[in-house]
Amino acid sequence: MTDVDDEIKNTLKKVNKKWGGENEFHLEIIDNWKQVIKNWRANGGIVVHLTMYGALINEKITEIKALNQNVLVIIGAEKVPKEIYFLADYNIAIGNQPHSEIAALAIFLDRIFDGNQFDRKLTNESIKIIPTDKGKNVIKN
Amino acid sequence: MTDVDDEIKNTLKKVNKKWGGENEFHLEIIDNWKQVIKNWRANGGIVVHLTMYGALINEKITEIKALNQNVLVIIGAEKVPKEIYFLADYNIAIGNQPHSEIAALAIFLDRIFDGNQFDRKLTNESIKIIPTDKGKNVIKN
Repeated sequence: MTDVDDEIKNTLKKVNKKWGGENEFHLEIIDNWKQVIKNWRANGGIVVHLTMYGALINEKITEIKALNQNVLVIIGAEKVPKEIYFLADYNIAIGNQPHSEIAALAIFLDRIFDGNQFDRKLTNESIKIIPTDKGKNVIKN
Repeated sequence: MTDVDDEIKNTLKKVNKKWGGENEFHLEIIDNWKQVIKNWRANGGIVVHLTMYGALINEKITEIKALNQNVLVIIGAEKVPKEIYFLADYNIAIGNQPHSEIAALAIFLDRIFDGNQFDRKLTNESIKIIPTDKGKNVIKN
């Protein structure tokens, strides 16, 4: 564990405490990522690597959803080990031009869940926003 | 103009030169943002402000698309002037919890364009990725 890892863990904890989802988000710092991929596949899950070099999402999303399996999503920083392209079941491009990894993950999740992720309620939040047309409506517990 | 502004302009220019779209992306640094909003609306366009305090995108996207108007999207940094909430035609939440502004814009555009933005070809690129299932396929002009 490094100081950076600790900082990320603390941030996640704080966010969960404020906005809910303490039991729904987990962070693990791991070294042996190959084993994670292998275990996931051994348990019947599929592995999707998001990369601008991959096949276009529009052409693959129906196929991926039809598999109806748990999905492990891999998103790399600038340089991803070449092996990942071959260990993944799908290399998927959210566009074949450079883009934000966070934006790619957002679109992938939105497509996978058909937008229903926004209806999901988190638990034990201390602050909550009520959707509103103009202005801000915030409830504090 | 500040040094930061110059740096952003230069980055955009470099990216366009490499990946195409020189005539399709423009950056302007402006002070009078209220006038931009007013002019946009005067020309028949609609103004969508993306904010976690807004109405849920799932409930508004069909209505926004049905208007079939040019859309000015506003995305603020941490503190957005209160006025914007009232100048905008729509305050739209890509989820009512804190999230990446880039991710919010990505999902909004993906919904507005029905994913067809990925089929759009840019012009005069010097490098191009060919979508591929495994590995990397890059063409340099």
